[in-house]
Amino acid sequence: MSANTNLLGFLFNPRSISLVGASHSTEKLGGAILKNLLKFKGRVYPVNPLYKNILGLKTYPSIKEIPEPVDISIIIRPAHETPEILMAHKGMAKCAIIISSGFAETGETQLQEDIKNIAKEAGVRVLGPNCMGVYNPYKRLDTFFLPDTLLKRPKKGNVAVTSQSGAILSSIFEAMRDANIGISKAVGYGNAIDIDEADLYGLIADDKNTDVVISYIESLGDGRRFIESAKNLSKKKPLIILKSGKGLSGQFAAYSHTGRLAGRYEVFSSILRQFGIKETEDFGSLIDSAKALAYQGQVEATLREDSLRGARGKGHEKISNRVLIITNGGGSGVLAVDECIRQGLDNAHLPQEKIKRLKEIFPPFYGINNPLDLTAQVKDEDYLLALNELKDDYDGLLIIALTGVRGITEKLGWMLKDFKSTTNKPIVVHAAAGATAKKIASILEKSKIPVYPSPEQAVRALKALLCCQDVSGYQNVRLSESKDNAFEILKNFIKTNKDKRAFLEHEVKGLLKNIGFPIPRGIFIAKDSRFSAVSHELSALSYPLAAKVSSSKIVSKTEAGGLRLGLKNETELENAVNELMNIKNSEGVLVEEMAAKGLEVIIGGIIDEQFGPVVMFGLGGVSVELFKDVAFALAPLEREDAEWLIKQIKGYPLLQGYRGQQPLDMDMLIEMIAKVSNLIATGLIKEITLNPAVLYPKGAMVLDAKMLAEAS
Amino acid sequence: MSANTNLLGFLFNPRSISLVGASHSTEKLGGAILKNLLKFKGRVYPVNPLYKNILGLKTYPSIKEIPEPVDISIIIRPAHETPEILMAHKGMAKCAIIISSGFAETGETQLQEDIKNIAKEAGVRVLGPNCMGVYNPYKRLDTFFLPDTLLKRPKKGNVAVTSQSGAILSSIFEAMRDANIGISKAVGYGNAIDIDEADLYGLIADDKNTDVVISYIESLGDGRRFIESAKNLSKKKPLIILKSGKGLSGQFAAYSHTGRLAGRYEVFSSILRQFGIKETEDFGSLIDSAKALAYQGQVEATLREDSLRGARGKGHEKISNRVLIITNGGGSGVLAVDECIRQGLDNAHLPQEKIKRLKEIFPPFYGINNPLDLTAQVKDEDYLLALNELKDDYDGLLIIALTGVRGITEKLGWMLKDFKSTTNKPIVVHAAAGATAKKIASILEKSKIPVYPSPEQAVRALKALLCCQDVSGYQNVRLSESKDNAFEILKNFIKTNKDKRAFLEHEVKGLLKNIGFPIPRGIFIAKDSRFSAVSHELSALSYPLAAKVSSSKIVSKTEAGGLRLGLKNETELENAVNELMNIKNSEGVLVEEMAAKGLEVIIGGIIDEQFGPVVMFGLGGVSVELFKDVAFALAPLEREDAEWLIKQIKGYPLLQGYRGQQPLDMDMLIEMIAKVSNLIATGLIKEITLNPAVLYPKGAMVLDAKMLAEAS
Repeated sequence: MSANTNLLGFLFNPRSISLVGASHSTEKLGGAILKNLLKFKGRVYPVNPLYKNILGLKTYPSIKEIPEPVDISIIIRPAHETPEILMAHKGMAKCAIIISSGFAETGETQLQEDIKNIAKEAGVRVLGPNCMGVYNPYKRLDTFFLPDTLLKRPKKGNVAVTSQSGAILSSIFEAMRDANIGISKAVGYGNAIDIDEADLYGLIADDKNTDVVISYIESLGDGRRFIESAKNLSKKKPLIILKSGKGLSGQFAAYSHTGRLAGRYEVFSSILRQFGIKETEDFGSLIDSAKALAYQGQVEATLREDSLRGARGKGHEKISNRVLIITNGGGSGVLAVDECIRQGLDNAHLPQEKIKRLKEIFPPFYGINNPLDLTAQVKDEDYLLALNELKDDYDGLLIIALTGVRGITEKLGWMLKDFKSTTNKPIVVHAAAGATAKKIASILEKSKIPVYPSPEQAVRALKALLCCQDVSGYQNVRLSESKDNAFEILKNFIKTNKDKRAFLEHEVKGLLKNIGFPIPRGIFIAKDSRFSAVSHELSALSYPLAAKVSSSKIVSKTEAGGLRLGLKNETELENAVNELMNIKNSEGVLVEEMAAKGLEVIIGGIIDEQFGPVVMFGLGGVSVELFKDVAFALAPLEREDAEWLIKQIKGYPLLQGYRGQQPLDMDMLIEMIAKVSNLIATGLIKEITLNPAVLYPKGAMVLDAKMLAEAS
Repeated sequence: MSANTNLLGFLFNPRSISLVGASHSTEKLGGAILKNLLKFKGRVYPVNPLYKNILGLKTYPSIKEIPEPVDISIIIRPAHETPEILMAHKGMAKCAIIISSGFAETGETQLQEDIKNIAKEAGVRVLGPNCMGVYNPYKRLDTFFLPDTLLKRPKKGNVAVTSQSGAILSSIFEAMRDANIGISKAVGYGNAIDIDEADLYGLIADDKNTDVVISYIESLGDGRRFIESAKNLSKKKPLIILKSGKGLSGQFAAYSHTGRLAGRYEVFSSILRQFGIKETEDFGSLIDSAKALAYQGQVEATLREDSLRGARGKGHEKISNRVLIITNGGGSGVLAVDECIRQGLDNAHLPQEKIKRLKEIFPPFYGINNPLDLTAQVKDEDYLLALNELKDDYDGLLIIALTGVRGITEKLGWMLKDFKSTTNKPIVVHAAAGATAKKIASILEKSKIPVYPSPEQAVRALKALLCCQDVSGYQNVRLSESKDNAFEILKNFIKTNKDKRAFLEHEVKGLLKNIGFPIPRGIFIAKDSRFSAVSHELSALSYPLAAKVSSSKIVSKTEAGGLRLGLKNETELENAVNELMNIKNSEGVLVEEMAAKGLEVIIGGIIDEQFGPVVMFGLGGVSVELFKDVAFALAPLEREDAEWLIKQIKGYPLLQGYRGQQPLDMDMLIEMIAKVSNLIATGLIKEITLNPAVLYPKGAMVLDAKMLAEAS
């Protein structure tokens, strides 16, 4: 049992509730809530100074007057009254659910900050403000201000819902009813000034009535706490996240001064992948997945543990994803295959001996492939024959039953129901609309076989089932500081440069060299030095050389015309150095040996607003900017995590020895990524970018590097 | 009226129908069809040698005995009987609909070929075989073998459906009923040995009952006829295509011997874009779009013509796509925005003066943005107020009404109905499930405002409506031969090389030079020449030089170790040439001047199985292979079409002067693409690939080129 459960165990299971703002009129929010609370099997204390009794319950003028401290106090009074009300909760309530709106979401950030501080002082945990509160049908607990007549509650079931938005929570409720799935717990947590998704996941992880969790998120507070909690929950039961505000991805935002590399949603999505937490694309898929998982997602804890243990040993392997499609309509089968390909599922061929066998069993015009096409001449029994022959050869089963043919009857429903009891394999059905289809669907869904109205939806649902068996994507969240020598060296470096935030290239490279990065040999010539003074030093370098302007004010050396490459002799070098010294804002010139050509990569470390230290990897050139081929991970990374990160990009094959070329030095790349991740994880800097570093079959070279310290 | 309409006008409007294989029993296909035909308002002649009378109709022993030649004869007899039956149709039927299966789809390709030939000889047009036939509720025409009890027909309406697959046609029927849309015409055309989508589009283009056409395609016959016909249809009414078998894209197939460049589905999809023909991703989107278009897709012919005329002048501009979202749930609004971004729609900001105005009208806690958030405190009237203020500033309107709040009632439905009569702007609604939502949806859908169960579906539907107003993507299909000097030069070239199919690099380059491509200066040294013999000629070239092995058997010079670059003097050159001569399969060595560095592009011409001559464009390096960043178009292309093609790839910004670099020579690139398109369009060659050509700020250079002639 986690600390959260101890602290917040009462949130879904309170013994007593007060309602500040109780009302007689169910037309008012305070009346609607009170009416819901009448069903609650615990003590309820309405608070309203104007009445002695509301809806038959003794009513109190203030929270201070009620006879006992309560587990939960619901507040539904205008926003400006909430500070005073909350203050009065000290010692009288463990938790306040502030339903009222009018806080940060309408620009009242100070008011929100105030109640946050008051809650802390008063020792009261807060859900909300601007929220729907909690719903637990197993305890008849319902704090929603929408009466059942307006928002029908789904039946009792095994799906827990957390939603930042009340609107989405309502939409999920309606959609769950339509999708024939039931609810175990629901929370709308609104502005989340205190209790957030991390707390809620902790609570739900051990809830015996919950088999599946779906979670709608708009914004995160502490990204690492969220990941830690989501990862723990995902180990125990399937969790699917729908994140809105993906739009920010379009802006590839400016919080990396080296530009155009990072965008909030990409970071979120990458990190979810890093820890094997499942994300869904849109509202429809959220519900479709939830339905499949609610029906069949109860993966044995041991299976999950196996998968988890296997993962660290085997590396991040693919899920078992061989899908068998049995259809009575060729076209629908092909659409399902298309979707399987999009979803990365494998329509593995039928085994040869099974083809032979099925050709004996079935008429010659049946298509004995995968999809297995039983044609419009199908009979109910054919599905069962095929399933029994083939089930052991596949990981997931998709049945397509187009019921507008004579051979498909209600009996198919009963047969599939019986079949299901013989196997643990995920099984989903696509049936078009129509009367027979509805009858079959009703039988199937009672037997926990989900039915979908399009082949593609059925495939996506099957994917959710196959994925939820797999927790091999999990890495441990390392919240510790970096472990190598980076911290000490970086600390000294920053100490000796104490007024600086941005550093010159040679300074950064000097640091990187100390930490063990491969850096070209070079000499920095300060603005006021004469060329002849460094001429002797320069003669130690081997031509051809490169000369680059150094300036904390120049963002792009190329765009500033600050690069001279392939300088062949001292004359060329001197001319180049003199020119570069005269560029506006020049603080000097860095002369370096030219590096051999190789594959350019970008390795970066940034401090993400939500996740803190994050490391980024992509190929150089246009891959990152035009093709958005970039991956992020929480820093610091160990070697195996760095290897995982490298494999996330589409350009990965280029590293492996593409088209007969030599494979590149993965060990070196892994080491550089791990080192950058350690640097950013120190917390001493705001950003570091190696762009580009060049990778060779043996070794690498950092061609350019930038770093920004934290503002002191 | 097109030729097709004349020829096939009777297909949806026959005066007389015979049914070969008529049966008493409606359990049998021949009985089910006859029962449907009883409702038909024309003459019906059952054919069956065993009976004189079936279901009350006089029955004939053979088609030859019926009293008049019929417009349509339906054949539902075992496949092996069809050749003889079809032969008997000569002079007795204009068109045979062969419902029977057992042809190419089960491997009986010879039988299919036979009936194709017989039909031609007999002068009978054929629909099918292995098909559902035709459905026209306006004539009570229904040849489907599925009785209404098994497959309920949708109501009469304005959507025409063509489907190669009977299964998908049935699924579409069921889905249309669910989506509350009606049908005007439907055809299931199966194996399409004669009548195909091109014929059907021609027929439907002028059908006054049809406003929208949806088309499910598995494979194409003549791609150019298809495109021509689809383009003509799209000019008159919205056409949406769902293509299955996208999976082939994964295989990036081997029908280009230079490898890994072309894949059938990418070609199909690119060419659809070239001509502005709309494609949809999956079954669900097909139905969602069809619903929106059936309700509001009747764009004035003049509007389409305007768009069409504008396009040729302005180039392929973006559609007008400013979308206003009005919601009463913040979360749903954000999900809608995410989908708008994915769909390339513009959530343009509210105009400043409207923000001011709305802040006066609405309570302070409403969110005055786009999405306009009316919150849970919304009242029906608020939507109308907002719409009237803002409708003129946007091209499309999305209303999100989450009905689980007190302020939304049935009245909202009536208000929106009235509002719709005041505007031509596309308008769609998302309402979650629930009782009030159902009532509102019923009112709205009667007024032709489509309602969707998720915000993302509503956005995609709105996209379909905005797109259908836009036909600016249309190019004219040029079926003519190429017009420049390429044909004559190529003809001569092939004549003088008459036994050859594959050519050596210097031969191809010689040809290209004659046609006006920029080619490096170079000299070919044949296998049996001595270096000293060409030494004088070589001295005319400027160092550094490149030496490359020449062989019709070596696919990749790099992988064969057949490249020596940057040779600085005669000694280096001689060594390189000698080495390359000794490579296995070497037929000689091409020595060329080194070209300057620039941006590498790939330009290819292939003969596509379905579309014939097709031109392909992509960037060199990894863009094509790893990022699949490649576009195709029907050849030949005129200059403006070539420019369109270039703009289709994600890497396009690189050509425009990326990050402060000089823009590259677009004129030259356009010219090279047009020339390659002319070469492949001659029909004299099978394939040509310039890979890479290098592009400079001024000019270009073809570094390597391959060509394959047609087998003679």
